Amino acid sequence: MATATATIDLNAIRQNWQKLRRLSSGDTAAVVKANAYGLGVKQVASALYNEGARIFFIATAEEGAELRSIVGKIPDIYIFSGHMTGDTDLIKNYSLIPLINSIEQLSRHCELSKEQKFGIQLDTGMNRLGMEPMEWETVKELTLSLNPVLIMSHLACADEPRHEMNAMQLQNFRRLTDKINVKKSLSATGGILLGPEYHFDLTRPGIGIYGCSPMQDCFSVLKIEIPVIQIREIGRGETVGYGNTWTAPSKRKIATISAGYADGLFRLLSTNTRLYFQDIGCPIVGRISMDLIGVDITSLDVEPEKLELINSQQTIDKIAGGAKTIGYEFLTSLGNRYHRNYKGLIE
Amino acid sequence: MATATATIDLNAIRQNWQKLRRLSSGDTAAVVKANAYGLGVKQVASALYNEGARIFFIATAEEGAELRSIVGKIPDIYIFSGHMTGDTDLIKNYSLIPLINSIEQLSRHCELSKEQKFGIQLDTGMNRLGMEPMEWETVKELTLSLNPVLIMSHLACADEPRHEMNAMQLQNFRRLTDKINVKKSLSATGGILLGPEYHFDLTRPGIGIYGCSPMQDCFSVLKIEIPVIQIREIGRGETVGYGNTWTAPSKRKIATISAGYADGLFRLLSTNTRLYFQDIGCPIVGRISMDLIGVDITSLDVEPEKLELINSQQTIDKIAGGAKTIGYEFLTSLGNRYHRNYKGLIE
Repeated sequence: MATATATIDLNAIRQNWQKLRRLSSGDTAAVVKANAYGLGVKQVASALYNEGARIFFIATAEEGAELRSIVGKIPDIYIFSGHMTGDTDLIKNYSLIPLINSIEQLSRHCELSKEQKFGIQLDTGMNRLGMEPMEWETVKELTLSLNPVLIMSHLACADEPRHEMNAMQLQNFRRLTDKINVKKSLSATGGILLGPEYHFDLTRPGIGIYGCSPMQDCFSVLKIEIPVIQIREIGRGETVGYGNTWTAPSKRKIATISAGYADGLFRLLSTNTRLYFQDIGCPIVGRISMDLIGVDITSLDVEPEKLELINSQQTIDKIAGGAKTIGYEFLTSLGNRYHRNYKGLIE
Repeated sequence: MATATATIDLNAIRQNWQKLRRLSSGDTAAVVKANAYGLGVKQVASALYNEGARIFFIATAEEGAELRSIVGKIPDIYIFSGHMTGDTDLIKNYSLIPLINSIEQLSRHCELSKEQKFGIQLDTGMNRLGMEPMEWETVKELTLSLNPVLIMSHLACADEPRHEMNAMQLQNFRRLTDKINVKKSLSATGGILLGPEYHFDLTRPGIGIYGCSPMQDCFSVLKIEIPVIQIREIGRGETVGYGNTWTAPSKRKIATISAGYADGLFRLLSTNTRLYFQDIGCPIVGRISMDLIGVDITSLDVEPEKLELINSQQTIDKIAGGAKTIGYEFLTSLGNRYHRNYKGLIE
């Protein structure tokens, strides 16, 4: 088989979530948007539900409808994008809880029955989602009379603990929600690590569950193994791959492996990225193709059938950094072509 | 709905393929690996089959098995990765034609019945896939006695017409296949544009079908429309998005749109990338999030319900260039979250 394998460790995901739960002073939700950060919402959300998670966050009403069919009737499912035109039926039929971002969304939601739950998202400085302070002042009393189940905001710089923005957003959130007796939420993974004053009633970890920065001391959730199609010896001065961007400095042994940027292995991944045979790292050589990568395996004394991408020496964050991005984007870019194995799957 | 829409124009795909077919001096195949470059192998391969394509190329035997169920019994389906361990049943059951890359693969293939078709892939200098010249000399006679249906190689620098590598690979391919009476193939889209001496009996266009460079004067196959979740006014000095990377130089109107790097809109997309309302381009501001992007729509005198990403002013190639990559990677990174509409679908 030339298909690469992605092994997703649901036990590691469970343990990471429990760790974030222990760190949180209130309740702990789980963010499973974007197909559970690319790892498979069906398996990940089921595992977290079995672990005790009863509150989930997703990006769109469509994602919410899918999630409802996975986790059943009990959990609360919040939608970050709120109540958009055309969402009403999904919100009603799948009992989703939109996080209202604007007066426009509030009006739309008010057309539904009063029993249809909703939350409020406030902007505390990120200028991305949520009502602006002035909007909020205008509709606060009306909104509270409709009994929102949650008031939340989102931190822009939580992965930089010393950034002054954190304290400023915390202060803004406190000011906007002062004396309001509704459940409050401000923090995702980064905010949980800032300390309990950022936690309020509910935390919403995402990336920490999946074992990436800014979470520390967490369990690795992913292993990627890529089959070797062919091994060849090349002489000094020969080139490898598109555009002849790499020239062999001496006689080398090159493995062509069966994965590429169509599998989320970014074309920008530098030659700092290595493929591993046991604990020996072998550098990528030449340009990454859509389905193929050249690897210099001269240092190996065996001809491997497959090579590994992620291990303790080369984490998801490190690979992502080599392509000038973050672990989040590496995860959501993995694509559909892998054989996906789930460790710890409860059938 | 907060879900973005990707409209894929199958008529444009058909016309691009016909154009490549007219440019080719021999037969013309279609490369539909990696889910037809991310656009949907089911719809794309069906459209090309209806247009007359009878030869397809894919990356792995698993992709071949899927393709067989789409295009039916008649077409030839070639596998670039050849005959890997574990592929035998798929090759046999789905009548796939592996492109044998090594003596090891040849031995594996010989264990099958003599009626099981195969092709040969030769390396002419790219050092990625295919037998090395010395290997080929060793097994040439034996191989030819087994009646391969195709001999092919692949150009490393075809998108740079003046690169000396092209003529060198052409010469190598001629030398290795001289006087051999088997169908020959050297060129994908770039090679087709190099001229007829590169065409031999069969060309294998991929990216040109999908309307990207190095193909010229082709039809655009993709439109992406992204819903606006919320519009806000911000004052001079306010920041937008994660890490406060963008600060408003004056009073601005910011739209938050519902797509992000989980939808293949690379985090590295620069502020040179614009979202369009009709023909007015509005720059991305701040960091691209997983599901959200900030756009400066100050120049618009309406509040749009959605914005467009691709048009005649901003092609796939241009967007990809803004993230230091190529159109190929933009296409294969689109992901699963879009509503996908197919124009020209034959049910």
